[in-house]
Amino acid sequence: MSVKEQLAQRAETVESFLSVCMKDRGVPARLLESMEYSLLAGGKRLRPVLVLSWAMMLAPDDVDMGDKVMPFAASLECIHTYSLIHDDLPAMDDDDLRRGKPSNHKQFDEATAILAGDGLLTEAFGLMSAASIVKGLPADRVLRAIYVLATAAGSGGMVGGQAVDMEFTGRDDVPLEELRDMHAMKTGALITAACECGAILSGASEADIDSAREFGKSIGVAFQIVDDVLDVVSDTETLGKPAGSDEAMGKSTYPSLIGLEKSKQLASQHIDTALKHLSKCTGAEKYFLEQLARYIVDRVY
Amino acid sequence: MSVKEQLAQRAETVESFLSVCMKDRGVPARLLESMEYSLLAGGKRLRPVLVLSWAMMLAPDDVDMGDKVMPFAASLECIHTYSLIHDDLPAMDDDDLRRGKPSNHKQFDEATAILAGDGLLTEAFGLMSAASIVKGLPADRVLRAIYVLATAAGSGGMVGGQAVDMEFTGRDDVPLEELRDMHAMKTGALITAACECGAILSGASEADIDSAREFGKSIGVAFQIVDDVLDVVSDTETLGKPAGSDEAMGKSTYPSLIGLEKSKQLASQHIDTALKHLSKCTGAEKYFLEQLARYIVDRVY
Repeated sequence: MSVKEQLAQRAETVESFLSVCMKDRGVPARLLESMEYSLLAGGKRLRPVLVLSWAMMLAPDDVDMGDKVMPFAASLECIHTYSLIHDDLPAMDDDDLRRGKPSNHKQFDEATAILAGDGLLTEAFGLMSAASIVKGLPADRVLRAIYVLATAAGSGGMVGGQAVDMEFTGRDDVPLEELRDMHAMKTGALITAACECGAILSGASEADIDSAREFGKSIGVAFQIVDDVLDVVSDTETLGKPAGSDEAMGKSTYPSLIGLEKSKQLASQHIDTALKHLSKCTGAEKYFLEQLARYIVDRVY
Repeated sequence: MSVKEQLAQRAETVESFLSVCMKDRGVPARLLESMEYSLLAGGKRLRPVLVLSWAMMLAPDDVDMGDKVMPFAASLECIHTYSLIHDDLPAMDDDDLRRGKPSNHKQFDEATAILAGDGLLTEAFGLMSAASIVKGLPADRVLRAIYVLATAAGSGGMVGGQAVDMEFTGRDDVPLEELRDMHAMKTGALITAACECGAILSGASEADIDSAREFGKSIGVAFQIVDDVLDVVSDTETLGKPAGSDEAMGKSTYPSLIGLEKSKQLASQHIDTALKHLSKCTGAEKYFLEQLARYIVDRVY
């Protein structure tokens, strides 16, 4: 099975968990519809898969580990989805399309989109705690992972990154270093936290938790560079959102600052760094994570 | 000391915690300014005080209990504040004034206000986990309280209540029962969770946790009725927001549905119910909570 097929298969198990986890919680009908509209709109489910893989790789003797961490893994998709809904709002990036469909506020309305995002973010933390309360993972592990994830998704992480990105919009003179720092907050922090939390939840050693974090940091940078590159080389249909929108908005990107070829090379270098942090790991999950890391960059070739 | 003075004194200890808890977390300057603008805009700090009092009352032998639950208590003010910022947005209630000052999106801009809310909501869960990680409360207690709070603040609670409230706007024919259910979600759930989480964090028995929850439910209803009444009988300066705005927006309220006098009576009845749930408690904190409950209704007399 190719890594793409394997990723799709795992995304499906995440998908079936996501498709039921918001039900029967007393959510008003239209709000639930709006939350699920975005949550179940497809996508690679990369962040949950990273949680699952790191947890399973580092707890090879626990055959139920995948099941135990699933609520926590799903919570990362809720957080990712909420961030997309809010980023698309008219006051933010004002995007009408997302994954080839009308963005949430276009399909519903602005108030509903804001509340759907707020709801998904809040439910995410309920799901995280369910990893212990329902699935029996030790409470101290789950609590540490919640702290890591709140920090990564919060105002010094993902939310802060979006704020800085808004300040950068319309500026094509942002230095590469500041661009990198912004992306590390906006997209890198959540990808990094996915790997780190998987390791924490598995009960891994501090050294393994460090490796997971460093692996996440490296693929996070590579992922963002590839995203910038795809915005240049891909078409709107493939992207599911308007291609060339970065250039149209006058955004600084890796390709605009160092060129297309150098951007691709830089992404590859970061994947090489990521793979080094897997060197002490073993088994089928290690192989999958290696392939997954390579696949991130292969999308632009 | 009067209950008003005691409440103000406790609000001050919460305030000094809040004034430092967002610092040194790598938050971009303007975003931090926006978050603190709303978080430190005053207010009674009722929800944190309820967490503190319930926890201290039910763990009388632990003199450090107040200190231990403070990060968790503060998290409720972060959640309350974020909900006010988002509710004031043009796409929602479109309020220009909050606590006598320009609302967040008026003082900053819409994008910053959305992100400040997102940031406060996310940081809230970091603070909750800090009650164990930094302050040493048992992880399983904190995790249970996180689950309760996420449920109360989420799409089946506070966020859902705001969604229903939006649907009700412009309708003056909402039946009392539906109005009550909406308020139970929108304001009641968080007040209830404050009491329940205080009890959970203190290590109380299930019976005491039940009492805390029922006390919270009753004062939550009373609180909302009083809010509706104050909107009719108070002036803009006292309220810190436009008086009479409910009527102007054609909202169903307790006074519009059952009249002013019956509304006041109903609020008093709910406070009497609340006090019954304190009957098995003892000590100075019991006395404070009794006075606090009465004070909620006394504001309209």
